[in-house]
Amino acid sequence: MKIAVDIMSGERSPEILIKGAVEAANKLDITAILVGEKNIIEQALKTYNYRKDKITFVHSSEVITMNEIPTIAIKQKPNASVFVAARLVKDGLADAFVSPGNTGATFAAAFLNLGRLKGVSRPAILGVMPKVSDKFTVILDVGANPECKPIHLVQFAAMGEAYASTVLGIDSPRIGLLSNGTELSKGTDITQRTYKILKKLPVNFIGYIEGRDIFSDEVDVAVCDGFTGNIVLKALEGVGKALLNILKSEINKSALSKLGAIFMMKSFNKIRKKVDYSEYGGAPLIGIDGTCIVTHGSSNDKEIMNGIKVASQMLNYQLNKMISNKLKEYHISKMHWFHREKIS
Amino acid sequence: MKIAVDIMSGERSPEILIKGAVEAANKLDITAILVGEKNIIEQALKTYNYRKDKITFVHSSEVITMNEIPTIAIKQKPNASVFVAARLVKDGLADAFVSPGNTGATFAAAFLNLGRLKGVSRPAILGVMPKVSDKFTVILDVGANPECKPIHLVQFAAMGEAYASTVLGIDSPRIGLLSNGTELSKGTDITQRTYKILKKLPVNFIGYIEGRDIFSDEVDVAVCDGFTGNIVLKALEGVGKALLNILKSEINKSALSKLGAIFMMKSFNKIRKKVDYSEYGGAPLIGIDGTCIVTHGSSNDKEIMNGIKVASQMLNYQLNKMISNKLKEYHISKMHWFHREKIS
Repeated sequence: MKIAVDIMSGERSPEILIKGAVEAANKLDITAILVGEKNIIEQALKTYNYRKDKITFVHSSEVITMNEIPTIAIKQKPNASVFVAARLVKDGLADAFVSPGNTGATFAAAFLNLGRLKGVSRPAILGVMPKVSDKFTVILDVGANPECKPIHLVQFAAMGEAYASTVLGIDSPRIGLLSNGTELSKGTDITQRTYKILKKLPVNFIGYIEGRDIFSDEVDVAVCDGFTGNIVLKALEGVGKALLNILKSEINKSALSKLGAIFMMKSFNKIRKKVDYSEYGGAPLIGIDGTCIVTHGSSNDKEIMNGIKVASQMLNYQLNKMISNKLKEYHISKMHWFHREKIS
Repeated sequence: MKIAVDIMSGERSPEILIKGAVEAANKLDITAILVGEKNIIEQALKTYNYRKDKITFVHSSEVITMNEIPTIAIKQKPNASVFVAARLVKDGLADAFVSPGNTGATFAAAFLNLGRLKGVSRPAILGVMPKVSDKFTVILDVGANPECKPIHLVQFAAMGEAYASTVLGIDSPRIGLLSNGTELSKGTDITQRTYKILKKLPVNFIGYIEGRDIFSDEVDVAVCDGFTGNIVLKALEGVGKALLNILKSEINKSALSKLGAIFMMKSFNKIRKKVDYSEYGGAPLIGIDGTCIVTHGSSNDKEIMNGIKVASQMLNYQLNKMISNKLKEYHISKMHWFHREKIS
């Protein structure tokens, strides 16, 4: 299994990202194709131990920075690392690609080169939220589609269900539709129509869920539009960081607290690991006819390694085939009338 | 200043809520009018010390429970405590009311009895999020209006600005529009049109903000529709609780951690106080032609006391007058064309 890794994008140095790819190649049954500046790659590889047959590279010297606008970047830098990585998949030279990046550019690279999976109207970005007892909630879309119609949300449910049942190993995942309350009268016109469709489909749909339910053990897949999902995901990342900062500043205020913190180091590390998004290997672009992961711009070696791991899991489980089957099961691709008609 | 307190609603006992009202009456320059079952109130008051001229009551034996549907409850229980409390304000017998409640029922009670403030199309629910350095971000709407037009969001900005500058004492509050990214190309059709209007108004508008910015010191007022705001607020409450639970279970796993936790008790208490929403006194229903606070259904005495305190601050600062002035300044009430026209 060959996974192309864009080591030029993101906010960290290529060396850090190469380190993550080398670790993945050493640990997993994959070959990493590093995509980036030849000289940097050759120099960095000298400092790592790795099996030569499991690391290869493709030169690309251009980079899409975090602040570039995807639609402009595509025209100005067609040979940027993220586009080269996507084309390796398109040309059958790689099975998946991972980029720590400008999410819009990565999405555009995947969408334009690999296209949509059959039956999917709108590919989405899938987020995984940690909760208690080493469990997770899948949330999608977290950014690709700010405005969605019911059919898009229904397809997100199918894709989230497939991901939860394969990669996360959850039996008959419980699907919830994010809303501002659990009563049927809540939500928007779009969520109310989506609710009625999901109720009729062969899916474990538990109805509306609220923001707090994302962390409860009541739901496995939270479905929402990309506007809401993106704001929620970023707010949660923000509050995690804010709480850790408050804790740090409180600890430093007294010697007793500092001593207490040393005694609690093991507990703190477990919690830090839980709120540390680099543990979860980024976000799959789901619904793309190919396998592609976008990790945080701030990704370190660990997040890149985990991103590669998630990509290999998606391939091993044949997630895309599973999604296609799910959509057939839902008969969604035929439901063109969703676009025109309200379901009574 | 007379504040009616609905002591029958919510999930806690009336006695707890009466305790909060008594504490507020003892500490603040207000008179509390307890609204609820006569016998319960008389019995409870025997156990507290209070000045007799600062506590009075009005009998109401009916309650709207947390799960009742507001539109049905209004018809079936017109004399429920929350409606009686709202009518006291309508009839000029109280200056404000506080209810720990079914938010929908409280909103309906306020809206139907007190109406909208002149120039306000849609009253909203205002949330206050704690962040580092004892600062706060105002976020609205957090639930009253799942679907909003640009004019509604612009009015939320005006109301949030007035609240932040008076009750929170922030000089020239920075207004941000919540979106799925800071670039102009992000957001929905609605947020993009709102953006253009806010840019033209005499307001300290800093543009789009992301979910994580709610906790940064870059913004004072986060504007969004009630669907998004409600989901974000509840997700944040959920994650705070989840993290505290994880911490508790980690601490109990080792004797050393338990000892460390004792040493850190003071730090933990400060953090708990920070994430404890009962410290912030509930959510004002803003844009109502009157003063009304809805606190959490799970409100304890402390949250009721703080809710009464916030109501008294809103009255002292003449917040509603300030909002009317802001809206005049924005010329919003005349901008009927917002409804019909996209702003170029």
